[in-house]
Amino acid sequence: MTAGAERASAPGLFVTFEGGDGVGKTTQSTLLEEWLRGAGHSVVRTREPGGTEVGVLIRDIVLHHRGEVAPRAEALLYAADRAHHIESLVRPALARGEVVIQDRYLDSSVAYQGAGRVLGRDEVRDLSLWATGGLLPDLTVLLDLDPAAARARLDADDKPFDRLESERETFHARVRDEFLSLAAAEPDRFLVLDASRPAHDLAGDIRTRVRALLDLDAA
Amino acid sequence: MTAGAERASAPGLFVTFEGGDGVGKTTQSTLLEEWLRGAGHSVVRTREPGGTEVGVLIRDIVLHHRGEVAPRAEALLYAADRAHHIESLVRPALARGEVVIQDRYLDSSVAYQGAGRVLGRDEVRDLSLWATGGLLPDLTVLLDLDPAAARARLDADDKPFDRLESERETFHARVRDEFLSLAAAEPDRFLVLDASRPAHDLAGDIRTRVRALLDLDAA
Repeated sequence: MTAGAERASAPGLFVTFEGGDGVGKTTQSTLLEEWLRGAGHSVVRTREPGGTEVGVLIRDIVLHHRGEVAPRAEALLYAADRAHHIESLVRPALARGEVVIQDRYLDSSVAYQGAGRVLGRDEVRDLSLWATGGLLPDLTVLLDLDPAAARARLDADDKPFDRLESERETFHARVRDEFLSLAAAEPDRFLVLDASRPAHDLAGDIRTRVRALLDLDAA
Repeated sequence: MTAGAERASAPGLFVTFEGGDGVGKTTQSTLLEEWLRGAGHSVVRTREPGGTEVGVLIRDIVLHHRGEVAPRAEALLYAADRAHHIESLVRPALARGEVVIQDRYLDSSVAYQGAGRVLGRDEVRDLSLWATGGLLPDLTVLLDLDPAAARARLDADDKPFDRLESERETFHARVRDEFLSLAAAEPDRFLVLDASRPAHDLAGDIRTRVRALLDLDAA
């Protein structure tokens, strides 16, 4: 099966945030949302996995099942969550002309499953594109950070670690490399930012890029 | 993505039962299992969806979620169940030289999702083959029955109907046609039986075919 990539987000705008845990995706998503709402835009904040009721059930299986989930099964579960989420929530919002800000999308699947595990990155990407009918974001913000620094942030939060978070540092280093490689392959879609910079500086860079995309739409 | 089909069941034997609800798959699976055990074979009886702990969780989402599950999400959930089931249960049993008797496999996915819904049969089949690393059964017994007759049997059982079962007769007629079409395309793999015949006659035909396959293995 193959699925062509397309810019299917018009009249809305589809922005995703990518990067490891602890890099500041939630903070930047919130700052972007506040700025967009202040400018009069309708915004939908969502996430994968788990952005829908069905997705929460799927997320529970993937992240918290006690036994091993076979690697292909895990990839298919993420893809199922994605298919349902995009069809039932994201595409309708984009069709209404809203801005969708999403925490993780297909690049996370490729980086975590494709690179970190036993499946090929092209297989995982094809699966995601089939699941979503080929929907790619207009903008993907990659918050890049050394895994050790990200880990220190998470430790400071004192949150319990789930299965993915508890895997080893070397895994997170490979994931980081994969994200950077994906960004290099699609420079028009990606905005790569050094996540160790101050949050308000990062927010400014993101706003500049989003403003340009919204101006394009308005033109 | 594409996945080549292969006969990967040796040294075991992989037998699947297909057909609509109420055609007698459980009865024939039980008769075959008893005969095989009597002849000294190790037998694993299993089912899709839901043959593993993870599969039960997935089955609950697909069959009993109150809202609509997007069609591609449903196909991916079935494929995830299949991937996990084949990897964690079926392949290990086949590797031990056991006979696996399974209630429903990829032909059900193609017949129900591909024909009855909005996805193409080739897409659904490719997805299943990717999920399983290309594992096809050595024998697929299709118990063919007019949907009205099958429905009468289910009514007699007085079992509650789940979401799939409550869909309309025309859907079941299309599914039946799809099963027959799949069987026609792979005559070596399929044994098509008129399920309105007496159960012990059907069991005899199935035993004859299974015996031939086991003799081949022993040769």
